[in-house]
Amino acid sequence: MDPSISIFGDWGTSRLRLYLRQGKSVLDRRDGPGVSALTTSPEQTFLDLVGDWREAGPSGAILCGMVGSRIGWVEAPYAPCPASAADLRERVLKIEADGLPVSIIPGLSCVNPLGGPDVMRGEETQILGALELDPALKRGRHLLVLPGTHSKWTVVEDGAITGFLTAPVGETFALLRQHSTLAAGLGPDVVGSDAGYAMGLARIGEQGPALLPHLLFETRARQLLNGLSGGDAMGFLSGLLIGADAAAARRWFGELGRVTLIGAPALNTLYGQAISSAGGETAAIDGDSAVLAGLTTLSQTKNSDFHVLA
Amino acid sequence: MDPSISIFGDWGTSRLRLYLRQGKSVLDRRDGPGVSALTTSPEQTFLDLVGDWREAGPSGAILCGMVGSRIGWVEAPYAPCPASAADLRERVLKIEADGLPVSIIPGLSCVNPLGGPDVMRGEETQILGALELDPALKRGRHLLVLPGTHSKWTVVEDGAITGFLTAPVGETFALLRQHSTLAAGLGPDVVGSDAGYAMGLARIGEQGPALLPHLLFETRARQLLNGLSGGDAMGFLSGLLIGADAAAARRWFGELGRVTLIGAPALNTLYGQAISSAGGETAAIDGDSAVLAGLTTLSQTKNSDFHVLA
Repeated sequence: MDPSISIFGDWGTSRLRLYLRQGKSVLDRRDGPGVSALTTSPEQTFLDLVGDWREAGPSGAILCGMVGSRIGWVEAPYAPCPASAADLRERVLKIEADGLPVSIIPGLSCVNPLGGPDVMRGEETQILGALELDPALKRGRHLLVLPGTHSKWTVVEDGAITGFLTAPVGETFALLRQHSTLAAGLGPDVVGSDAGYAMGLARIGEQGPALLPHLLFETRARQLLNGLSGGDAMGFLSGLLIGADAAAARRWFGELGRVTLIGAPALNTLYGQAISSAGGETAAIDGDSAVLAGLTTLSQTKNSDFHVLA
Repeated sequence: MDPSISIFGDWGTSRLRLYLRQGKSVLDRRDGPGVSALTTSPEQTFLDLVGDWREAGPSGAILCGMVGSRIGWVEAPYAPCPASAADLRERVLKIEADGLPVSIIPGLSCVNPLGGPDVMRGEETQILGALELDPALKRGRHLLVLPGTHSKWTVVEDGAITGFLTAPVGETFALLRQHSTLAAGLGPDVVGSDAGYAMGLARIGEQGPALLPHLLFETRARQLLNGLSGGDAMGFLSGLLIGADAAAARRWFGELGRVTLIGAPALNTLYGQAISSAGGETAAIDGDSAVLAGLTTLSQTKNSDFHVLA
């Protein structure tokens, strides 16, 4: 066993990304199926994928995401907010796979800023990673956004996640794009244009996010009556949905100020424009980098490195 | 030929409903496929369905809905708003099928109350029918709502349709119900409960329609954290979507006052509750009755009955 070597994993609903790490270096990377697309048990899938990595003598593995949900490997109960890195480290669930210690990071639950229940799994690791990548976020109150299938608007105060608010923006876009009359007749290759996106943001800016459902139908009517192209229409649809998500944030957070985006670069760019339209300014952190930084900090204890935990 | 006998039809995207009429009586009724589900040409489908009705000697047929769209039998260009029954009568498109005169009612286009383009096909006939069923709607300014796959909020002034606003509420509900994580694990037989619906309306009332995307995710989180039943969750989802549609109407129409609902009785009841939550009161007209009344008024000219037109 080499105590400097370990396996990190981000195992979500639709994708598994595994890293073989030595210290802060990535020696190898490997992708696998998400927990909703497994053909063997989670344990067997994991062992098959890391098979030859075992020869390097990793001291253990640490995994975040839906792997710790009811539909994953083993359920790691949600930790309540407020939650710091120290709080999450205490709640890491420890199991073993063929002699290899495996740590599973729990998700978070909270009463969100609208007074409703809310949950996340996987994003907590990215958020805590972002705090390592930009330590200024560890002091004071900050708004961080993780755009994606389910966008997560997160409030961090003095290094702890105090609450968050989820909106299924990416999922709604995908459903409307694939199945609705708004995109009827458009092939799967049609990609939203920048001009269409800007037009969608502008319409939300003029009318306000409360009228999102009514602006959505313009996606169709502008194609029928004004000859809007498919690419512009899909950009417009995206601009309406993301624009409404950003504009609504002012209703519960107040003035947006500086917002940190954590996600894929293309999505960060789209959300950056929407948040700018809603009066905020943004800094962006790559989502994959944030996961690695988060897994790193959660694999450490006060006095020792991850491998000693295992 | 019997001049008192004619064929009325409501031919939408997913359904065709045909009526054999004598004066104001329905002699027979027959259902067929919507224009998106045809296996033969629209003309052939129509002739096959009305085949034995020809023996009664109908003077002609009059059809409304998507039959007059690009994906229908023949395109009847949209009539612009404002549009009265007289305006629509002038724009009826006349064709012939195997010697039988067929009139196709055009849809409407408008610049909607949000300044965007909008269209309807079929609903214009129901609206003009509602004005015949409740003649008080012919004087003054009134708000009428046709709930459904695409809800149509319509302003009628002194008997003319002056504008309308579409929101794809029913379509969005169906997509989220069938494909999204909000309904994950719920079988197709789970039906939304009244208690869940009331809870959805209440959440929109507390938070306002701008936060609809963020309240949507509570549908999932309440199942995960609070043990909300599937039936209550689907009622909640429906309450959020319909509640936000109704609450947003105040933003562009002002105080709602008395709103006339035109639709299926179950949907009318749901929208009635949502409009009541948003400060309005409602009267309901059955959608099928409104279609028949609308086809009746559009088949008449100033001086003569429909059959003479043919």
